[in-house]
Amino acid sequence: MERQAYLVRAVEGPTVADIGERALIERIRSRLPPPPAWVVVGIGDDAAVVEPERNRLDVVTTDASVEGVHFERRYSAPFDVGWKALAVNLSDLAAMGSAPRAAVLSLAVPDGLGLAACDRLVRGFVDLAGRHRVALIGGNISRSPGPLFIDVTATGTVHRRRILRRAGAQPGDALFVSGEVGAAAAGLSFLRTERARTAPEEDWANEADVPGDPLLAACVERFRRPEPRVRLGVMLGRNGAASACIDLSDGLAAAIRQLADASDVGAVLDAGRLPVAAGAEIWFRQTGRDPLRETLSGGEDYELLITVSSRMARRCDAIARKAGVPLRRIGTITADRRLRVVRDGIEEPLPEGFTHF
Amino acid sequence: MERQAYLVRAVEGPTVADIGERALIERIRSRLPPPPAWVVVGIGDDAAVVEPERNRLDVVTTDASVEGVHFERRYSAPFDVGWKALAVNLSDLAAMGSAPRAAVLSLAVPDGLGLAACDRLVRGFVDLAGRHRVALIGGNISRSPGPLFIDVTATGTVHRRRILRRAGAQPGDALFVSGEVGAAAAGLSFLRTERARTAPEEDWANEADVPGDPLLAACVERFRRPEPRVRLGVMLGRNGAASACIDLSDGLAAAIRQLADASDVGAVLDAGRLPVAAGAEIWFRQTGRDPLRETLSGGEDYELLITVSSRMARRCDAIARKAGVPLRRIGTITADRRLRVVRDGIEEPLPEGFTHF
Repeated sequence: MERQAYLVRAVEGPTVADIGERALIERIRSRLPPPPAWVVVGIGDDAAVVEPERNRLDVVTTDASVEGVHFERRYSAPFDVGWKALAVNLSDLAAMGSAPRAAVLSLAVPDGLGLAACDRLVRGFVDLAGRHRVALIGGNISRSPGPLFIDVTATGTVHRRRILRRAGAQPGDALFVSGEVGAAAAGLSFLRTERARTAPEEDWANEADVPGDPLLAACVERFRRPEPRVRLGVMLGRNGAASACIDLSDGLAAAIRQLADASDVGAVLDAGRLPVAAGAEIWFRQTGRDPLRETLSGGEDYELLITVSSRMARRCDAIARKAGVPLRRIGTITADRRLRVVRDGIEEPLPEGFTHF
Repeated sequence: MERQAYLVRAVEGPTVADIGERALIERIRSRLPPPPAWVVVGIGDDAAVVEPERNRLDVVTTDASVEGVHFERRYSAPFDVGWKALAVNLSDLAAMGSAPRAAVLSLAVPDGLGLAACDRLVRGFVDLAGRHRVALIGGNISRSPGPLFIDVTATGTVHRRRILRRAGAQPGDALFVSGEVGAAAAGLSFLRTERARTAPEEDWANEADVPGDPLLAACVERFRRPEPRVRLGVMLGRNGAASACIDLSDGLAAAIRQLADASDVGAVLDAGRLPVAAGAEIWFRQTGRDPLRETLSGGEDYELLITVSSRMARRCDAIARKAGVPLRRIGTITADRRLRVVRDGIEEPLPEGFTHF
């Protein structure tokens, strides 16, 4: 198979192809903390064996990060790519109300990938895993004749009655979103504008290299290393306040559409209430774009979108305080299946969301 | 990112890029049988939720199939690729003594992949899943700017005392292998010789197109659609006969090496006892190669290699009969850590195994 140009470029130091799969696995294993007691067999056998707690369910999710589709080297450092590959999976578990527990990591690496980059990628993964006490229990490493592929499957536990689903929203429920939105899209837009001409696509971004403006820097950080709302998701599940929940991987508009589809309802969004990140507001205005439209369509904020019945709405404040993440009401679920956004008293249809296809 | 030539070729009929991720997921879901009762939340939410049986452990494995590394279109039909992507994972579970239960499927597909090919790939996966009652509980589909990537994570259950591990072989234990070896390597070698010049690499092999010679046809089939030894693995776990177990993914030599490393022992292999597939014996001789060496180094037979103490050796016959798969004694575990093969009374070191790096 013909190699792409970026596979044969010179790298400094040894490459992953120099040391081989088993040494690479040993390298990863040596960077991990000792596994928790519920890991009966960890990395290094044909498969991992775990023992879930009694009376709890296992939640399983998988999400791939593909170079050229989900990330580009010139916009993200290897650390960021490893972090984010796990973060997107933890975000999915959080959206189910599930506490994360274990992950398996499948890497397909181009021969020319520097070993230092590979190590930093693993470090990013392990760093985020450590923050949420997720055990890396197994994985797979193979060559890639094309781009770098990172596929993560994560499992978590949840009580049966505490599962948060996309289905369940009822007409009259309030729509809440956690944290801020638009930041990741603004961060990526900034990187595309500022870096596209200067940085060659085969060179990795530097972890430490962020914009001088702190508001914009926060957007770039959100894009590179999103914070999955693990604690908030688990608390929402326990608390029983949310009638439905989804994470913002493909953007707010796509999330509302998917939640509404699954629940067989519609929604009206109040544009004025959207917690658009300050840096995003500034960046989109500065570059002549509509912050609302960019925020609705832009993806990768990894916040949680929930629906809450009127009698449960008060609980949201308490949860937000405990979880340390704001929850803001941004709209209402309707029996009318249309999806609308109201801005300055004028109603328009919700734009399409972001898609990787 | 520069596209490779095979991504922009014309395909007949619609491509996966024409219908998008959500329609593709719906297409996969529509091809599945109704999920079993222990799947609490299946495909279509942020994550899947399963309820394992009480007093059983969860076994988790992940294995990727990368175009150009693990398969090539001209040697495998799409059905075969889907089948094998799951088979290699079920083989890992079998090697742990674990009954498979559920799988998640992560696909990264080039834009130019025909929808018909994608459907047949899913059909191959679902066909094998049905044979072993494995539920497809979730997954992920994204674009690939390079080759086709298929990553599967499979889970199974096992009782704590029935786990088969790579570690555990003792000096004096007998080394057994299931079924036949060398067939997959011969099948691939045949395809490479016969097809490499005639079939363009971007065209998929035809499922029905097999060699006229039935012995060789069996080798090609073994390469394309290996039979994971699920029943045998579970029975070996239950029976307690095996002191260690590993599957033959990277070949017999590599498996012996890994099992011996994990168990801190050596091994002597008796070349005369190896159950080399008849088609492989003929093909390798016919093409001037050493069947023994090719069989030891060649991968992808997905048989099980086990070690058995002398007092347990008799149980193997009963298990083999019940599982419908032969188990043949091929050597002995030694305290001497060297790995040797004896042929016609002459001892030589075990060759290196097959590696994807």
